[in-house]
Amino acid sequence: MHAAPVVYADIRAADQRIADVVLRTPLINVPAIDKQLGARVLFKAEPLQRTGSFKFRGACNAVRAYRPDRVVAFSSGNHAQGVAAAAALAGIRATVVMPSDAPQIKIERTRSYGADVRLYDRYRELREEIGAQIADETGARLIKPYDDPFVIAGQGTVGLEMAEQALAQHLHPDLAVICCGGGGLIAGCSLALRARLPDIQIYAAEPEAFDDTRRSLAAGERQTNPPEARSICDALLASTPGELTFAINRETLNGGVTASDASVRRAVRLAAMELKLVVEPGGAIALAALLEGALDIGGKTVLVMLSGGNIDPSTLAEIVGGTG
Amino acid sequence: MHAAPVVYADIRAADQRIADVVLRTPLINVPAIDKQLGARVLFKAEPLQRTGSFKFRGACNAVRAYRPDRVVAFSSGNHAQGVAAAAALAGIRATVVMPSDAPQIKIERTRSYGADVRLYDRYRELREEIGAQIADETGARLIKPYDDPFVIAGQGTVGLEMAEQALAQHLHPDLAVICCGGGGLIAGCSLALRARLPDIQIYAAEPEAFDDTRRSLAAGERQTNPPEARSICDALLASTPGELTFAINRETLNGGVTASDASVRRAVRLAAMELKLVVEPGGAIALAALLEGALDIGGKTVLVMLSGGNIDPSTLAEIVGGTG
Repeated sequence: MHAAPVVYADIRAADQRIADVVLRTPLINVPAIDKQLGARVLFKAEPLQRTGSFKFRGACNAVRAYRPDRVVAFSSGNHAQGVAAAAALAGIRATVVMPSDAPQIKIERTRSYGADVRLYDRYRELREEIGAQIADETGARLIKPYDDPFVIAGQGTVGLEMAEQALAQHLHPDLAVICCGGGGLIAGCSLALRARLPDIQIYAAEPEAFDDTRRSLAAGERQTNPPEARSICDALLASTPGELTFAINRETLNGGVTASDASVRRAVRLAAMELKLVVEPGGAIALAALLEGALDIGGKTVLVMLSGGNIDPSTLAEIVGGTG
Repeated sequence: MHAAPVVYADIRAADQRIADVVLRTPLINVPAIDKQLGARVLFKAEPLQRTGSFKFRGACNAVRAYRPDRVVAFSSGNHAQGVAAAAALAGIRATVVMPSDAPQIKIERTRSYGADVRLYDRYRELREEIGAQIADETGARLIKPYDDPFVIAGQGTVGLEMAEQALAQHLHPDLAVICCGGGGLIAGCSLALRARLPDIQIYAAEPEAFDDTRRSLAAGERQTNPPEARSICDALLASTPGELTFAINRETLNGGVTASDASVRRAVRLAAMELKLVVEPGGAIALAALLEGALDIGGKTVLVMLSGGNIDPSTLAEIVGGTG
């Protein structure tokens, strides 16, 4: 056994460190979904978080803990915006390395928080090399998207809030289902949930073709997804669990569940119509898995993470307007 | 001068009375909208409230204050769901009189909270007569949608929360813009806001063709909208200000602003993309008025009410997918 990379006290410390800038997002329950699923389902509304996803929490915790003069990150999605916004609040420069074919809206949003965006050709350049070069030349600190103890602890503050919000309503959740890409969110959340709700069962939710964490938990070691894997969950396309995150998740999780793209679309639509929340495909994977009946939740109280809402308008319109 | 029908203490009492069941919805700020409007804009996210709108607050306060054995209401929209949910929580029967051509989804939702729905033919029957008949026959108490002191006080708890949430962030809003149909929401909110933020300016936002409150404030007496008036804001189609609500609003409001249907559509789209909130047309009218430049808000701190999110999926898809 190695020393745990992150412990519950780190999440408490993160919660203190970022409390003044993080939105305490609500935990939402609606009778229509409870009836449909036959359970009491409590949804954590992280699309409402600053930058539209939980990624702001980890980025902000890392920036405030490391106190760098400037930062660099590579991401085409939510981590880019989280780091850019956290750096802006800290008054330091951020450089984000993004693929030149990333959606224009994501590039614009990252720039809107004041970050320098360095575009690269994903077929001819390696973003890790560009990031390392920027770090070397400028002394910027690299903020990794999930395999960093302060990032994991920051994401864990969502789990801490969920547990506290449920307990404040005198509810004792039996299960938690949390979206999983590289595994940073669920690693931090599972540590916090286990500390506050010792008997809770915790499951990772992944796209069918990106079930690396589910298989890794079953095998006891890190597994990789095939290169031909595809999913509409653009936030959950990590090819393998993180080193630090898996060291935590193998101890804290009960297993993994998956959902098809069709179920994800149903979940995005249901969240819009019943919860009034715009949720991106990757953010809706936990609800999607429950819609598929992946877990026996009958009569139970269930925490469900909705992790982000950064979706293109055309995609949202197409999903909400459909009947699938 | 008559005695004020509702005073600030009534809103404090309502806040205590319904605190255990009302969701304290977040006050949300995003840099992209601040930049677009040149102001600091704080959005109150009432689409996340139980039943998808603020109407639950007033209905719940009235049910708990009157302690009736059963209730009756007429409404084709958000008040129907608010009363149905409040009655279910109180363990009493509710009858809601709804037009037979109301959207099926609204009838189903009202029934999903356990209410008896009494359909009527809006071209051959008068809902007031049916409601009075039900009240006579069953002893049910009629819960009016806005012209009731306890309903107004309950809606005022939204305003109280907005003020407290802003002050907790050390912000002192200069202006508040609040949607206005019959005027119950803005009557309650304006009393709470004036008590907590004495210098704030408060404006009613209405659809262009339903600007009865704006004109009534200017004229000093209640005005009526022409029968041919049309708007996509189905929640804001009252023909004239309420008696009680106007008695309050003439004292507390600075004036009224309006927005076109086209601006409402832009506002619904902006709320979905930037705030990650599904907002119905009537719920987005205050943001729509600001998008039209109806008020000089440059450099100011502005509270904006987003009052509800009960919108048909096809309408949402059409608006979000459009470019207008």
